[in-house]
Amino acid sequence: MAVIKPSVPKGTRDFSPLEMGRRNFIFDTIKSVFRKYGYQQIETPSMENLSTLTGKYGDEGDKLMFKILNSGDFWGEAESRKQKVESFEFSSKALTPVISEKALRYDLTVPFARYVVQHQNEITFPFKRFQVQPVWRADRPQKGRYREFFQCDADVVGSDSLLNEAEFVMIYDEALSRLGLKDFTVKVNNRKILSGIAEIIDKADNIVDLTVAIDKLDKIGLDGVTKELLERGFTQADIDRIKPIILLDGSNEEKLRQLREVLAASAIGLKGCDEIEQVFSYLKLCQLQTATCELDITLARGLNYYTGAIFEVKTNEVQMGSIGGGGRYDDLTGMFGLKGLTGAGISFGADRIYDVMEELGLFPEDAGQASQVLICCFDKDGELYALPLLQRLRAENISAELYPAGAKIKKQLDYANSKHIPHVILIGSDEMQSGLLTVKDMLTGTQHKLSAGEIVAKFS
Amino acid sequence: MAVIKPSVPKGTRDFSPLEMGRRNFIFDTIKSVFRKYGYQQIETPSMENLSTLTGKYGDEGDKLMFKILNSGDFWGEAESRKQKVESFEFSSKALTPVISEKALRYDLTVPFARYVVQHQNEITFPFKRFQVQPVWRADRPQKGRYREFFQCDADVVGSDSLLNEAEFVMIYDEALSRLGLKDFTVKVNNRKILSGIAEIIDKADNIVDLTVAIDKLDKIGLDGVTKELLERGFTQADIDRIKPIILLDGSNEEKLRQLREVLAASAIGLKGCDEIEQVFSYLKLCQLQTATCELDITLARGLNYYTGAIFEVKTNEVQMGSIGGGGRYDDLTGMFGLKGLTGAGISFGADRIYDVMEELGLFPEDAGQASQVLICCFDKDGELYALPLLQRLRAENISAELYPAGAKIKKQLDYANSKHIPHVILIGSDEMQSGLLTVKDMLTGTQHKLSAGEIVAKFS
Repeated sequence: MAVIKPSVPKGTRDFSPLEMGRRNFIFDTIKSVFRKYGYQQIETPSMENLSTLTGKYGDEGDKLMFKILNSGDFWGEAESRKQKVESFEFSSKALTPVISEKALRYDLTVPFARYVVQHQNEITFPFKRFQVQPVWRADRPQKGRYREFFQCDADVVGSDSLLNEAEFVMIYDEALSRLGLKDFTVKVNNRKILSGIAEIIDKADNIVDLTVAIDKLDKIGLDGVTKELLERGFTQADIDRIKPIILLDGSNEEKLRQLREVLAASAIGLKGCDEIEQVFSYLKLCQLQTATCELDITLARGLNYYTGAIFEVKTNEVQMGSIGGGGRYDDLTGMFGLKGLTGAGISFGADRIYDVMEELGLFPEDAGQASQVLICCFDKDGELYALPLLQRLRAENISAELYPAGAKIKKQLDYANSKHIPHVILIGSDEMQSGLLTVKDMLTGTQHKLSAGEIVAKFS
Repeated sequence: MAVIKPSVPKGTRDFSPLEMGRRNFIFDTIKSVFRKYGYQQIETPSMENLSTLTGKYGDEGDKLMFKILNSGDFWGEAESRKQKVESFEFSSKALTPVISEKALRYDLTVPFARYVVQHQNEITFPFKRFQVQPVWRADRPQKGRYREFFQCDADVVGSDSLLNEAEFVMIYDEALSRLGLKDFTVKVNNRKILSGIAEIIDKADNIVDLTVAIDKLDKIGLDGVTKELLERGFTQADIDRIKPIILLDGSNEEKLRQLREVLAASAIGLKGCDEIEQVFSYLKLCQLQTATCELDITLARGLNYYTGAIFEVKTNEVQMGSIGGGGRYDDLTGMFGLKGLTGAGISFGADRIYDVMEELGLFPEDAGQASQVLICCFDKDGELYALPLLQRLRAENISAELYPAGAKIKKQLDYANSKHIPHVILIGSDEMQSGLLTVKDMLTGTQHKLSAGEIVAKFS
């Protein structure tokens, strides 16, 4: 057999022990906050029936989905289809559903909707679930974009209370604070406000054009936005009408007051203001630790599915896209025939949070989760002498290793250094005779002589 | 769009909050023991290049591997192959490598070998890694056999010390003890002993036939084994020679003594005895908590790749196949061109351990990981009153929920019951006036009136 230089498929990654330690630190922190807020974990299979996924993500999504080749004689299946259906032409598009009936999960939302419908009789609503699993997309790989990446979602279905929205802001606040972020903003908007803005200028159908243009205010200024709106078919009168909104400024309260004035004629717009106000009033009762919560009417993500609140989280410490987002959707499960179930959800962008934390040096020293102690012996006798001590340490829940006898001490110390093991115990013939073992701090280089009992006490 | 009754692909599973809580309990326990013994976690991508996996699991494995259909115009690729290669015939076998270049991971061992070779310059040996990830096989689904299931492996490469073997027995002992198992056996054998047995009767090439027959002793008795050995081409003289081995009995020491007698003429057989004896001598220095460690020369798993120790773990409390297994292999990475790297590894059978624990009722009550407290309110005022208390509880790391206002109390209590939330706090107008809130124990039904401060203290 020819030897192949091994590699991973493009867009996928191995995670080393150090990276895993850091990723676990992020995921464990977020999961523990989800749990504290009453969210419970589920998992769904990596593969779903093609019929479950197809048509849920647009043509682009259908194209980028990783499909699984049917096992067995898929080609026989294709030929018999050709025989049965005169008009059947061999092409990638026509063959795909014949030779593939499953695909890899493209996100966590559609499988969650499928889960809710399939298990609706076992579920007590409101159903608060979280899910941390990989998803797969055949996107062109580039910096920070992978073909296999983890999503980290919490959603509640079956409750229209705005308390849920307020709690999502608190979850972002607590999780990101615990990870060590010191300055970040949870931007909040409401789809109904965007509808209201479009409504008052009679352009309900052009809401996407409107929001795309307004969204660029930061980059191109008012003149730029005006120019773009005119190009996109809005009139100068439209623009004058909504200019106070484009230039909205001040505290959240002031913004809301100005919004209410401009949206006075739009019932849906005012409803959006009411909803945001309610969320803010909940938040006033629960002090945020770190997050700034800011009404931002240029926020327009997920217009295809969000019907109420829209969230986005940005760090203000480093240059980085959003590290979280979410919103409320009125009809999650309608695609599988279960109507009228409202829901809301948020997501953490784990890969970006990782990059932010790395840039800011926020990972704890022990996130690599190395052993605390390595026992090094000069010979086989030392090994046998060490074994009971090793087990005493482990009985105290101290992670510890014994380097197998036979290697030079230098090699053993190199091993400790490369694994970031902070303490080494050296056992030679002197140590075995006196019962006092040499304990070396690998960071400072200092050494002490301690008895086995003292060593166990020191590390407990 | 027609509404599809949603389901998961056959052989795959959803995991509910209760199941996830229990699975996390198992995986977290095993992972923490791996860490305590110095093993560090890695993860590899779900998909590998087909060239990495093909030919590593035999023809059956190649067939059962889930292949990923290439994205883009795979059919165009197939037609152009046909144009270029005159002899190319359209068939499932010929088309597969043309229209698919990736497959889902079939186990964790081959990806681990690929990882070690790919990252050999970053790795410090001995490299002790663990890995807990799903694998996929297009097996026919049946009870207890799934197409997506988790493997849970620890391996060390680059160390031939038998200390590693002894530590694997200790890892089994500690992990399964912590999970609550009270009677289980770690069976140990050594491939060299099996080679020795075949050698002394000059049937080195028939080692598989020999072990398959001996393995049935429990079921068919000595007469049955004799009959089968004769059918498989062994002579009566062969059988007489190895009869003491088939009927091997007594303590591990006695078994080893008898083995050494029979294997006296086989250098490799005696080497196997030496190795097992060394493992036992290590284990004598570290008392096992629960496990019985037993030499079992009928144990013959993995004869294709194990070259030294062979392990298998069985519970003695319920009827169940092996719940763990492993062994030593001399050439893990040779398939990717890195020769001479010895390794040893073990695996836990998580699905079977789950079934054993369920049958024995070993899961802790809180493995569903529900909230500790649910706050129930009679109206909107109660909700606002409750919110600061909710945040005080959470600040003390108590998982707590507030049921959104508007639902009948009965519905809220049903929610607590179905989520197994043990305590409920009731807030009505009386409670708000007096500042004394009703705390109800959902298991016993008893109620107490407590102030917010007392409540926080009670649950902290």
